[in-house]
Amino acid sequence: MKKHNFYAGPSILPQYTIDETLKGIQNFAGTGLSVLEISHRSKEFVAVMEEAQQLFKELLDIPEGYSVLFLQGGASTQFAMIPFNLLNKKAAYLDTGTWSNKAIKEVKTFGEVDVVASSKDKGYNYIPKNYNIPTDADYFHITTNNTIAGTEIHTDIDSPVPLVADMSSDIFSRPVDVSKYAMIYGGAQKNLGPAGAVFVIIKNDILGKVDRQIPTMLNYQTHIDKASMFNTPPVLPIFSALQTLKWLKNNGGVAGAQKRNIEKANLLYDEIDRNKLFKAAVPNKEDRSLMNITFVMNDEYKQHEQAFLDMADQRGIMGIKGHRSVGGFRASTYNALPIESVKVLVETMQDFEKSI
Amino acid sequence: MKKHNFYAGPSILPQYTIDETLKGIQNFAGTGLSVLEISHRSKEFVAVMEEAQQLFKELLDIPEGYSVLFLQGGASTQFAMIPFNLLNKKAAYLDTGTWSNKAIKEVKTFGEVDVVASSKDKGYNYIPKNYNIPTDADYFHITTNNTIAGTEIHTDIDSPVPLVADMSSDIFSRPVDVSKYAMIYGGAQKNLGPAGAVFVIIKNDILGKVDRQIPTMLNYQTHIDKASMFNTPPVLPIFSALQTLKWLKNNGGVAGAQKRNIEKANLLYDEIDRNKLFKAAVPNKEDRSLMNITFVMNDEYKQHEQAFLDMADQRGIMGIKGHRSVGGFRASTYNALPIESVKVLVETMQDFEKSI
Repeated sequence: MKKHNFYAGPSILPQYTIDETLKGIQNFAGTGLSVLEISHRSKEFVAVMEEAQQLFKELLDIPEGYSVLFLQGGASTQFAMIPFNLLNKKAAYLDTGTWSNKAIKEVKTFGEVDVVASSKDKGYNYIPKNYNIPTDADYFHITTNNTIAGTEIHTDIDSPVPLVADMSSDIFSRPVDVSKYAMIYGGAQKNLGPAGAVFVIIKNDILGKVDRQIPTMLNYQTHIDKASMFNTPPVLPIFSALQTLKWLKNNGGVAGAQKRNIEKANLLYDEIDRNKLFKAAVPNKEDRSLMNITFVMNDEYKQHEQAFLDMADQRGIMGIKGHRSVGGFRASTYNALPIESVKVLVETMQDFEKSI
Repeated sequence: MKKHNFYAGPSILPQYTIDETLKGIQNFAGTGLSVLEISHRSKEFVAVMEEAQQLFKELLDIPEGYSVLFLQGGASTQFAMIPFNLLNKKAAYLDTGTWSNKAIKEVKTFGEVDVVASSKDKGYNYIPKNYNIPTDADYFHITTNNTIAGTEIHTDIDSPVPLVADMSSDIFSRPVDVSKYAMIYGGAQKNLGPAGAVFVIIKNDILGKVDRQIPTMLNYQTHIDKASMFNTPPVLPIFSALQTLKWLKNNGGVAGAQKRNIEKANLLYDEIDRNKLFKAAVPNKEDRSLMNITFVMNDEYKQHEQAFLDMADQRGIMGIKGHRSVGGFRASTYNALPIESVKVLVETMQDFEKSI
């Protein structure tokens, strides 16, 4: 039976990425060796690293003066590296959910944190608006897509101070005006590749402004200077990520991805809004995520949740159980998810409605 | 043509590891999904993580009271995490080469470092002996195998203070008395798996003794408490590492590996010592590495270096050009390298000798 992978991350990858990874493990770039056992200093892998960086720049139209890094440790390590490298006195953060919160928690080791607004009062089911970004902050941090609550900031906001964005779960899902950001970062394991790599897009001139000593591996400058090859990088995750970047380029780039993502999300949100059993977890349509579509059963049908999950499971639909903090269901519709999988989910929702 | 992979790292893996990784990418644990796109919270991957930790404990006979962690960022990140977590006032380090040096450099951000002995005076071509470990040090750090110079500490030394060992390049190459160590760590990409994971074997009770605030991801306690699942781990590198651990268990464990490693190293060192063209880079036989066999051409034959590399290349021998700081040649003979590859190298050395 065909499986429909709606996991929130690690999550579905293009079949092209999987096929090319299999080929690379059998014989990498004609070397006769597996990409699992190739030296990262070999000219063949250096070419992979360079092409991945170049495709990042091309697909996101990254201006001059920025570096693209591939690091390790997940976005969670970035939560500490950001203040380590950028915080002198005070940083401003927007609190839009669990991941924002984790980022905010790490700042306190390094200095003061000003949480400019929070949607915690309503279980993070909306994106705060009309907040003030303090002009004396060293930077302003946002989480553009909130995988758990299912909200998303769909535009590139204006900030009077350097803007830092965690785009772990919506990078490459739409065109981004990178020039508005000092730094964009995220784990690879949603729209990019398998778990084990972190991307960092960083404006070179925001560094070197703090006095504290930074351990070598936690200093962005180390990795800029060595083009992410200061130490052994995660070879296979980067090789696989490159395949996804090639796939994206051959499928209309980020504009093409955005068009498909809107189509998929509209299909599912329309059904959620129509179907008498369900309601969207995020009421404001403009705040709804195109990547993680959260929905619950209306109160009068709540006792049918498990039966719906069972029917979905029987049809090969995987990973739609909601996060425990929201409950209900979450369908992650990342770039690589085909619209056919969304159609199967929508049909299942309709069939289940008829069965009640 | 069959390739003989003598790279220093990332380096050769067992064919079993490669074959099982291919299967897992096609269909992971019967899920119908690829291991590249499976949630780390799925019960199938949780089982992988648990089995990998359990096999570490079994193969290395790790006593009660230790945790096995799989982290990210390479041994280079550990160089900073170790003093972050363990250093109050002073740490003692043994300087046996480039990697020791990099570890020593990171201590200075956190406190005092006492380098108890160094072999830098002779280009790190021996292991210092008869040094004193200060009893007021918070810990004593050693690098057991030095990939660049080709030296190795073959026994488990006694230390009056907690002993911390970087075993990146000789873990699983011999039985180790883990009870003599407070911590053993290393990058996966030699005897364990593909690049992208770091293992840490840590005695639980050495933690919690420093006052400084430690960022969440840099705190070993975080990862002990969450069994290496605090955030998304490097799924594929850990999955592949588990395959290598299974292979090792089915091939005589670390005692079996040690027997094969001694046999391979003897074969090559004997030829180096016999062949008029070559000499070992490490004169003291007891200090010679069983993992990275470094050798150079005798002065009168130095002009033939490139010709020898060319002949080796024609026979499928890869990765034997020496590190620039030692010159000459380096044959890395990790656990997964079959003795047949060493025999091909030895024959090539003999044929080249005849041709001169």
